[in-house]
Amino acid sequence: MKFCSQCGAGVERRVPAGDSLPRYVCPQCGVIHYQNPNVVVGVIPQWQDKVLLCKRAIEPRHGLWTLPAGFLENDETTLQGAMRETLEEANARVELLDLHTLFNLPHVNQVYVMFRGNLLDTDFGPGEESLEVALYEEKDIPWGELAFPVIEQTLRLYFQDRKSGRFSIHTGDIIKLPGEGRRFETRMLPKK
Amino acid sequence: MKFCSQCGAGVERRVPAGDSLPRYVCPQCGVIHYQNPNVVVGVIPQWQDKVLLCKRAIEPRHGLWTLPAGFLENDETTLQGAMRETLEEANARVELLDLHTLFNLPHVNQVYVMFRGNLLDTDFGPGEESLEVALYEEKDIPWGELAFPVIEQTLRLYFQDRKSGRFSIHTGDIIKLPGEGRRFETRMLPKK
Repeated sequence: MKFCSQCGAGVERRVPAGDSLPRYVCPQCGVIHYQNPNVVVGVIPQWQDKVLLCKRAIEPRHGLWTLPAGFLENDETTLQGAMRETLEEANARVELLDLHTLFNLPHVNQVYVMFRGNLLDTDFGPGEESLEVALYEEKDIPWGELAFPVIEQTLRLYFQDRKSGRFSIHTGDIIKLPGEGRRFETRMLPKK
Repeated sequence: MKFCSQCGAGVERRVPAGDSLPRYVCPQCGVIHYQNPNVVVGVIPQWQDKVLLCKRAIEPRHGLWTLPAGFLENDETTLQGAMRETLEEANARVELLDLHTLFNLPHVNQVYVMFRGNLLDTDFGPGEESLEVALYEEKDIPWGELAFPVIEQTLRLYFQDRKSGRFSIHTGDIIKLPGEGRRFETRMLPKK
């Protein structure tokens, strides 16, 4: 951020009075421009013993597999956003059942909120952001070609719950390890 | 938003190619300025049969009671943010136990994520944004002087769970009803 979006003056980076963190502040009109994490909402769409995955047609991670998910928009709820993304990316309609995971991804300033849902029919197909959409049993999931660690963790918890016969809600962090390369650690909030 | 924060040119409001919603777009440098909901994180700090509430020293809802909560910052997890807000607003330290509620507030573009936590000691007191901080039993909660509907709903679910002997995670929407005045409807995702 270089310019004030309200008055067009050049912004300064400083800690405002009464605050503890540096912000972009406009020296001309005084507006403080806060920057905060985004919410990503998505669905684990289930059909019998399978789940629906999408092959990404966009960067990042073009050509790799993911669950239908995307940024929550203004004026919608996380449930509405999750269903919208499933329709946009997979032309699929779901009935949402319950919250499944809340994952923090502080290295990209994202909070992932994933719901479990029942596919209403198998009349699905790739939207503009997908190359391919398909149903996978656990043993056939392309584990080595998943787009993001949060998607792998979400799927592993889902199948673990399904085996146990009881779905619960999981809260955790996906932490990027220091250094080059894509190395991550998952830390779950212990279940009480 | 009137000016591009990257190059300072005046922005336009239009639907970008491949998108479905109007955005602020810079006609000079091409940057699309997305605007998305914010996450509010907070805690229900419990001590024996009481919970800790803060009397707001800031607008909106100055002088009314709330749970410690505030906007999630970049580079932190929801758990870290919830503990930070509890320290800032009530000078109180908590051990977080579990996620308690995820509420959508689409009328203000916020997602509330509230955790249940144990106060580590009773050495608390008002931070800069609080006039007063106090422990309340259920029967003494100032129900008529709570700052926000989401706080009232969160507290009602908390005490309901406590009576049932089992804490669960609740997902729902707080919807502002049309017309003048502060009238809201709560819609919970049914529990499976």
